[in-house]
Amino acid sequence: MIFLDNASTTKICKEALDVYNTASNELFYNPSALYKKGSDIHQAISRSKERILKYLGAGKYDNIIFTSGATESNNMAIRSFLKPSKKALFGITEHPSVYNVAKYFKDNGYNIDFVNVTSNGDIDLDDFKNKLDGSVNFVSIMHVNNETGAINPIKDLVQLSKKANKNIIFHCDGVQAFGKIDVDLEDLGVDLYTISSHKIYGPKGIGALYIKKGINIAPLMFGGGQENNLRSGTENTPAIFAFEKACEVIIDKCDRYKISINELNNYTKEQLQNLPFDIVINSKGNTSPYIISFSIENLRAETLLHMLEEKNILVGNGSACSSKKSGNRILDSMGVEAKYIEGSLRISFNLDTTKEDIDLFIHELEITIKEYKNNTNR
Amino acid sequence: MIFLDNASTTKICKEALDVYNTASNELFYNPSALYKKGSDIHQAISRSKERILKYLGAGKYDNIIFTSGATESNNMAIRSFLKPSKKALFGITEHPSVYNVAKYFKDNGYNIDFVNVTSNGDIDLDDFKNKLDGSVNFVSIMHVNNETGAINPIKDLVQLSKKANKNIIFHCDGVQAFGKIDVDLEDLGVDLYTISSHKIYGPKGIGALYIKKGINIAPLMFGGGQENNLRSGTENTPAIFAFEKACEVIIDKCDRYKISINELNNYTKEQLQNLPFDIVINSKGNTSPYIISFSIENLRAETLLHMLEEKNILVGNGSACSSKKSGNRILDSMGVEAKYIEGSLRISFNLDTTKEDIDLFIHELEITIKEYKNNTNR
Repeated sequence: MIFLDNASTTKICKEALDVYNTASNELFYNPSALYKKGSDIHQAISRSKERILKYLGAGKYDNIIFTSGATESNNMAIRSFLKPSKKALFGITEHPSVYNVAKYFKDNGYNIDFVNVTSNGDIDLDDFKNKLDGSVNFVSIMHVNNETGAINPIKDLVQLSKKANKNIIFHCDGVQAFGKIDVDLEDLGVDLYTISSHKIYGPKGIGALYIKKGINIAPLMFGGGQENNLRSGTENTPAIFAFEKACEVIIDKCDRYKISINELNNYTKEQLQNLPFDIVINSKGNTSPYIISFSIENLRAETLLHMLEEKNILVGNGSACSSKKSGNRILDSMGVEAKYIEGSLRISFNLDTTKEDIDLFIHELEITIKEYKNNTNR
Repeated sequence: MIFLDNASTTKICKEALDVYNTASNELFYNPSALYKKGSDIHQAISRSKERILKYLGAGKYDNIIFTSGATESNNMAIRSFLKPSKKALFGITEHPSVYNVAKYFKDNGYNIDFVNVTSNGDIDLDDFKNKLDGSVNFVSIMHVNNETGAINPIKDLVQLSKKANKNIIFHCDGVQAFGKIDVDLEDLGVDLYTISSHKIYGPKGIGALYIKKGINIAPLMFGGGQENNLRSGTENTPAIFAFEKACEVIIDKCDRYKISINELNNYTKEQLQNLPFDIVINSKGNTSPYIISFSIENLRAETLLHMLEEKNILVGNGSACSSKKSGNRILDSMGVEAKYIEGSLRISFNLDTTKEDIDLFIHELEITIKEYKNNTNR
C-alpha cells in the first residue's frame, strides 16, 4: 500500500501511541481532582503546553489550550472576535472549518469579506490591502493551503494588518504548516494559531489553539471550568501527552528531512510533467513540499482515485473534509480552467514516502490514465 | 492504591485500549476520504452507532452523534433549543456542563428556571409541576446525580412534560447512569441523552449525544460537514471504536455485577454509620449503587482527602469538575446542614472494588478522622 493522502490524516507514530498507552494506564486520574495524583496530571498538562509552545516558537507568556481538534480551535478563535458592528477578512481558500464559520455568519448578516488568491493559490496582497479598511477587527488567513500546499506570507499579512489597525486580531490556521515547514510564532506575530495532532502523526481527537499573551478568547462551551474556563470538559490527557510526543518527534524530523522532502517534491513534479498527458501542476510558487495538487484534462478524478486504489495506491481529491462536495472552491479561485477542475488529484507525502513509492505511483498513474481514457473512449 | 473516585473518571479497560491500538494502526484513514479504505471506516462508525443505540435501548431510527465528551454533548443539546421567547427548566443539581450553560443564558436574559430537589437529592415533583407552565419548550434533568448518586424518575418527568406540552424537548444527562443502572431510552421517552466514555472504562475525549428520530439539533461548530453537518471535524475513530467496546463490556458486566455492587453499597453505608463520629449519609432514597456521598460534622473534607491519599486511598469531594470551587450547590439544595457541608466526601466504586477495599478504607478513615480531630484540637 502506498499512502499518498497524508494531508487528510496520518498514521500515529509508535512513540506517540506508546505515550498514549502509558498515560491511559498510569495517568488516568482526573486532572481536576484535589488529590496529588490528580494535580500532578494537571501540572503535567502545563508542562506539555510549555513544550509545545517552545516547538511553536511562541513567547514565554503565551498560552495554548487543548481542544478536540483543529475544527474546534478554528471555530473558537473566529467566534471569539466576530462582531456585528465590525468587518472580518478571510482567505477565499480557507479550510471548511474556517470558511464555513465565516460563511455562516455572513449569511446571518455579518460584515465578512473574502480575500482573493493569485494563480499560485496564495493571498493576493493587493486585494488584501484593498479590503483592509478601518472597520476590520479580525483576520483569518491560513498558513499552508490543504489542497495545494500554497504558503501564505503570514508575517507580511500580520504586519499589514497591524499597521492598518494595531487592534486587529490575526488568526492563522497552521494545521498544514506546523511540523511541515518552519513555524516561528514570535516571528510571524500572529495572535491566534491553530494546530492539529492527527496531521503530524499524533492521535486523532486532539488539537490546540495558540493564544498570544494579552488576547482574550471566549469559550465555545460551558461546564466544569477547565482550561481557566476557556474549554470545559475533562482533559483528554492521554491524547494531550501523545500529541506533545508527536510534536517532539516531528519537530526533530521535519528539520532533518527538509532537503530530502524538497527533492522528492521536485522529482514528483518532474515525473508528472513528463507523463504523455495534458497535466497541470496546481502547486506552484512557494508551497509546502508535502503537498502536490495536479489536474488531468477532461477526466473524473474520483474514478481515477478508485482505479488507483485497486492498485494499492491511495491519493486524495482535494480536501478530504470536503471531498464529497462537488466543485472545487480552491482551484476555482486560482483561476484553474474548467476542463482541469474535475480531474484534480492531491498527493501528500509523509516522512516515509520514498522515491521508489513515487516511481511506482507514476508508473501506475500512467497505466491507469490510459485505461481510463480507453474505457471512456469506447 | 484503593481508587474510590471512579465517578470522576475510570481507568480504561484492556479491551477498549486494545481496540484503540488496533484502530490507530490499521483504521487510521480519514473516514471522509473517497477511497474504500476511508468509506469502510465511515461505515464502521455507523455500525458502532447502531450497537451503542442498541445498548441504550434506543429505537431503530434514532441517531447518535459522537462528540469530544459529555460537556460538548450537553452544550450542544441545550443550545439547540434555548430560545429568548421560551422558558427552559433545569434541575438545580445538574452537572456544571448543564448548570453553567443554563446559568450563562439566564444571566443573559433568557427565561430559565431551576427545579428544586428533595432532601434525597432527586427532583421535587411538585416544584417541577409548578414550574412546568405553557411557555416551557425545553427541559434538562440528569438521570443520576454525580455527587450523591440520586436517581431521578426520568420516565415520569418526561410524561409530565409531554402531557403539559407535547412539543417540549426533554434532554437527560445520563453520564452517571449508562453502564451503571438500567437505561432503556425507548422506555424513558427522552428526546436527547448524553453519555460519556471515560466514566465507563472507555477512552477520554469521546462522548455521544443520543437524538430521537425527528428531533433536529443545531451544530456547535462549522466545518467539513461530518456527522450530517451536525459535528464537523475528522472523526476520532480509534476513540469511537474503543468507546463502543467499553459499552459492550460494561453492558454485559453491569448486569452481572448488579447484586454484588448493591451489597457493597449497603455494606459501606452500614460501616460508615457504625463509625464513632457524627456522620450523615447524603446518598439516600433511590440512588446509584456506585456513589456514596457522606458528610462528617465540622471537618474540612479537603484536608481529610489529602490525609487519606497519604495512606494510598483516593476519594472525591463532590464533583471533580467543580472540586476547586467553594461551597456545594448540590448538598445545599438538599438542605444538608451547614456544619456538614464542608466535611463532605464522595466515594465511588468501580467493578473491581471489593469488600476488602471497603474494610481497609473504613479502617483508615476511622484512624484518619481521629488524627484530624487530634490535630485540630491541639
